[in-house]
Amino acid sequence: MNHRVTKLQAWMKENGVDVSFVSSTENVFYLSGFFSNPHERLLGLAVFQEEEPFLVCPGMEVHDVKASGWNHEIIGYSDIQNPWELVHKSINKRIHNVRKVAIEKEHMNVERFEYLTALFPNAAFVSAEEKLRQLRMIKDSKELKIIEEACALADYAIEVGCSEIEEGKTELDVLNAVEYALKKKGVTEMSFSTMVLTGANAASPHGNPGAAKIQKGDLVLFDLGVVVDRYCSDITRTVAYGDINEKQKEIYDTVLKAQLAAIEASKPGVTAAEVDLTARRIISDAGYGEYFPHRLGHGLGISVHEYPSMTETNQLVIEEGMVYTIEPGIYVPEVAGVRIEDDVYITADGVKVLTKFPKELQII
Amino acid sequence: MNHRVTKLQAWMKENGVDVSFVSSTENVFYLSGFFSNPHERLLGLAVFQEEEPFLVCPGMEVHDVKASGWNHEIIGYSDIQNPWELVHKSINKRIHNVRKVAIEKEHMNVERFEYLTALFPNAAFVSAEEKLRQLRMIKDSKELKIIEEACALADYAIEVGCSEIEEGKTELDVLNAVEYALKKKGVTEMSFSTMVLTGANAASPHGNPGAAKIQKGDLVLFDLGVVVDRYCSDITRTVAYGDINEKQKEIYDTVLKAQLAAIEASKPGVTAAEVDLTARRIISDAGYGEYFPHRLGHGLGISVHEYPSMTETNQLVIEEGMVYTIEPGIYVPEVAGVRIEDDVYITADGVKVLTKFPKELQII
Repeated sequence: MNHRVTKLQAWMKENGVDVSFVSSTENVFYLSGFFSNPHERLLGLAVFQEEEPFLVCPGMEVHDVKASGWNHEIIGYSDIQNPWELVHKSINKRIHNVRKVAIEKEHMNVERFEYLTALFPNAAFVSAEEKLRQLRMIKDSKELKIIEEACALADYAIEVGCSEIEEGKTELDVLNAVEYALKKKGVTEMSFSTMVLTGANAASPHGNPGAAKIQKGDLVLFDLGVVVDRYCSDITRTVAYGDINEKQKEIYDTVLKAQLAAIEASKPGVTAAEVDLTARRIISDAGYGEYFPHRLGHGLGISVHEYPSMTETNQLVIEEGMVYTIEPGIYVPEVAGVRIEDDVYITADGVKVLTKFPKELQII
Repeated sequence: MNHRVTKLQAWMKENGVDVSFVSSTENVFYLSGFFSNPHERLLGLAVFQEEEPFLVCPGMEVHDVKASGWNHEIIGYSDIQNPWELVHKSINKRIHNVRKVAIEKEHMNVERFEYLTALFPNAAFVSAEEKLRQLRMIKDSKELKIIEEACALADYAIEVGCSEIEEGKTELDVLNAVEYALKKKGVTEMSFSTMVLTGANAASPHGNPGAAKIQKGDLVLFDLGVVVDRYCSDITRTVAYGDINEKQKEIYDTVLKAQLAAIEASKPGVTAAEVDLTARRIISDAGYGEYFPHRLGHGLGISVHEYPSMTETNQLVIEEGMVYTIEPGIYVPEVAGVRIEDDVYITADGVKVLTKFPKELQII
């Protein structure tokens, strides 16, 4: 059995969970290595305390499951079969008297839940999500390597973006050029909608890239990420087009100072809150506290937003193997919008910064 | 009250539903005109038989709801408020003794369902989805106009794609050029991942665009769609690069004949099955029945796949105002993959074909 499934089983034993039925694309992938989004069709992974797990999927995907390396039972169903009956049978072959089932309550829909409750009318249903988030929070070396590749491509994207900045070009012109360059490198998916924002647009937390033209004296904000082998990167850089004014420079320097301090503060044993507050205090002390309206960062992995959540109240203790973003920002309407974001990996005594594009103010 | 809400209310009265609580981005948009995907935060629209509906959303979106034209109650909540308590209060202000609640069972997750069942422990929960799908199936003139715009851009995309075909270019080269041209026209979203498939790749129903190079004698299959004002288009064209062989031509002619016949058969009063079978018989009679493994088409609108489903068994009667795709295909491994797809609007006595790129075999 792979380590991830074994860890879930340990949690099940501690909590008296008879079956975990995991059905989200991300968690099935995390536990089994098989990635698929069959949309309205059922995909599920059933894990037991002792018995062999099984994976249920549309019949036409059985071949892909095998190819992905899953070497336990696979139940394929056709469009005229009821997959829930097959699930029921396969569970009953393994265990009887199911009293506690763990599901993803934030993912499973009511229709499916009604099927499950009908199959196991005497069972209590608890959430498997918190445990799965905890497991996914600690990355292994293979995951780290993939995220590093995704970060290297994010660095490249910023490099392309900077080289495309030119008087008269719009935000969309630059954005399209960046994504086109990435596609030529074989990138097929971005972590989220790429942001290229200039001037007043960058100074609004609700800005969307559009037809705004880049002008001398503008700050240009890039926020983007690349997906490699199902894992996401996420980077933000803010650069200057021509000379910017003293106020803009002061804001940039404040954000950079806060960002560097939060990186410095990141290590095993501190809390997420302490890391957030390290950056937040610097920004507040400089008089910009009210202009930093969001958390410091978020975990990163198969999802672009996962655990840990780097907020000023989260008492979660940082551990080796976590990957998260550090992205303080200051947005003063009509003056400047600056955010600087890196992805970091927590080592035994500090961090490894995975995104490497320079952070000293770039003047283009 | 707008017509869409009034129609939902009529259904609620017929079926004794006290409250409909609609929470999917698409259906909230359809009923209220407000489009938002607040991810893990709650967005919901509560509709009553007689009383005023209300919309619940994150506080920072209240302004956008008003701007969207919604002129009934709006309940904004902050990140430290429990929106379900506000929902409960607002429902109780309007009606007591809630016995039947309609929700989207395929959309609502178990966590939210548990909140709702705790608030209304004596209520039965039924599905609102079937009714909402029926309502969305019949497009009004405003929706038609938007879909026509989306179709015109899809036509343009095919035109660009054809002009980009050249010896040595890969599928991804052509795909990137198409999407880049669309972005320059202001397109920010495609209906789904654009497909450009050549040769053997097009002949597999599982093909994905990649590094395959276009070669003389290849058929090139484009399948793509553009989103305009939240509505989707969807077009497929298969073109020849240089001369193709007799077998490929025969397959192309068969698909085209089937596609034209299904368009001809589409009008109010016939069933979806009859339309599907009109095309399917032509393909079967030509000896390719087993190589047409999917339904004839699907409804199109806010979602790229909606009602009606054009299958050989669906006895649904076609009505004026429906919009659906007609997309027969033949995929013979190692020989040819051909699909031709148009979007059609059902008029009083036939169809209006919304996608207009030529369908006679284009040899490039």
